[in-house]
Amino acid sequence: MKEQIRESLKLLQDRICDGLEQMDDKARFTEELWTRKEGGGGRTRVIQNGNILAKGGVNFSAVEGPMPAELIRTSLGIEPENAPENLSFYATGVSIVLHPHSPMVPITHMNVRYFEMSNGKWWFGGGIDLTPHYVIPELAKDFHQRMKAVCDKFNPDFHKRFKNWCDDYFFIKHRNEMRGIGGIFFDHLNSSDSSSLSKAQLLDFIIAVGDSFVPAYLYQVSNTKDLPYGESEKYWQELRRSRYVEFNLVWDRGTKFGLQTDGRTESILMSMPPTAAWEYDYQAAEGSKEAETQKFLVKGIDWINS
Amino acid sequence: MKEQIRESLKLLQDRICDGLEQMDDKARFTEELWTRKEGGGGRTRVIQNGNILAKGGVNFSAVEGPMPAELIRTSLGIEPENAPENLSFYATGVSIVLHPHSPMVPITHMNVRYFEMSNGKWWFGGGIDLTPHYVIPELAKDFHQRMKAVCDKFNPDFHKRFKNWCDDYFFIKHRNEMRGIGGIFFDHLNSSDSSSLSKAQLLDFIIAVGDSFVPAYLYQVSNTKDLPYGESEKYWQELRRSRYVEFNLVWDRGTKFGLQTDGRTESILMSMPPTAAWEYDYQAAEGSKEAETQKFLVKGIDWINS
Repeated sequence: MKEQIRESLKLLQDRICDGLEQMDDKARFTEELWTRKEGGGGRTRVIQNGNILAKGGVNFSAVEGPMPAELIRTSLGIEPENAPENLSFYATGVSIVLHPHSPMVPITHMNVRYFEMSNGKWWFGGGIDLTPHYVIPELAKDFHQRMKAVCDKFNPDFHKRFKNWCDDYFFIKHRNEMRGIGGIFFDHLNSSDSSSLSKAQLLDFIIAVGDSFVPAYLYQVSNTKDLPYGESEKYWQELRRSRYVEFNLVWDRGTKFGLQTDGRTESILMSMPPTAAWEYDYQAAEGSKEAETQKFLVKGIDWINS
Repeated sequence: MKEQIRESLKLLQDRICDGLEQMDDKARFTEELWTRKEGGGGRTRVIQNGNILAKGGVNFSAVEGPMPAELIRTSLGIEPENAPENLSFYATGVSIVLHPHSPMVPITHMNVRYFEMSNGKWWFGGGIDLTPHYVIPELAKDFHQRMKAVCDKFNPDFHKRFKNWCDDYFFIKHRNEMRGIGGIFFDHLNSSDSSSLSKAQLLDFIIAVGDSFVPAYLYQVSNTKDLPYGESEKYWQELRRSRYVEFNLVWDRGTKFGLQTDGRTESILMSMPPTAAWEYDYQAAEGSKEAETQKFLVKGIDWINS
């Protein structure tokens, strides 16, 4: 079945790249094929200097090989010397980060993935989240409604669980704030999970999540791309982009894991913004649009019903 | 003796700030005093928008309290549940990062610190390193000669050991390159170490290291600040600044430890550059000044004798 999952994910990558090129209406993806010494490889697709998108990537990868020691620790919770001999893994997924030019258009991220080990364990993971620099509640509501709709088609409990999981995951602990307004996040999803979905149904679920990405983001883009902005909005964007950097380099498990286990650096750091700025102890002026947005970067907001 | 160490470090901070203000000849440090809930506090001094310096900080801190679990793991190499009860620590140090405006002037970092635990163990640590975006071998030589001179006054073995340690420490593993041209780095230095220096002599050593910082950097600045540059040098600086961010957030033990254990975020991230840029798979043109500099970002160069 892993071949079927891999092929479904490749087709998903194709559909998403087509959708994003149509949306941007100027820049095209360039593709780089790479292979991994221990087994497998990927298709890294990058878009730059578009109408809407400043820098973005849509990565597909399918890699395999002996389980890295660090993965045995984090996935199995045991020391490598206690793991079964010759344990190997297979992982395939699509992962996206898009950085738009305009500070009024949100950054977004999507990832769906499948993982299996030679001992028979397998699971799916993924999520979509949105990082606006100026939060517009009606747009946040639309985004979360779409996330709920895709979840509800598969399991009535998914959305609540995955929305809370997302709030907890995309949290910049050292700043005590969320990276953005969240979305959905899930991991270690399998048939013995409370989801009671078969493996084929779970594959359908992650593909449905993947296919909800372009229309959800398109709605955000079409409602923000023509909003006016000036120097002060650009500067705020730079400061918020640096928070994105901080989250990804300090807290994101995938990024940390990839960098510490000899992953393909350029594909992993595709998520970095084109530019960023840091100012010592920046404080948004009370009552400013920036301070308003900061108030929204907290866990547990019910965007759909508020 | 810890009071004496703390006071020596505060005076060192004062001397360094005076020296840097004289060097910059425009911007002045602003000071923020802070306290830590569990005990102790610090003086964060920040300089911005100067003639030479775009953004920099000279931090002093002296903190104490129960040993955080993570510190027990990393410092003692044991699990917190196996540690003696009521183990507490005391740590004091001065830490500096300076980001100049000009891409021709190197970024620099200095840190000296003292650590003790209630079980009687204590040690000193620290180092100075230089991150030029355009390596000029004569200036690199001067910097390393000064580092050797301060080491040689205390122990003939120090320089070789600490220079290699620095090469190993300031290495961006996921880029397979050094952060800059190195300098010296040392940790866990005490009297039972092969140094055979007394505690008072080791304090003299870290203060001497601290006092070598301003003249060493001043020499770099006065020989680079008037070098001409344009857009392409500025862009290269932005790309190199993002490598600085990557090192500090992904690999620097102090930064990671501070952020994961509820340290004072603004003081820790004072080390971030004012701005940075990422470009997917940037490649310096063969034979360019940028490619020349990249060739110097490797371990083991004998700058003094080459």
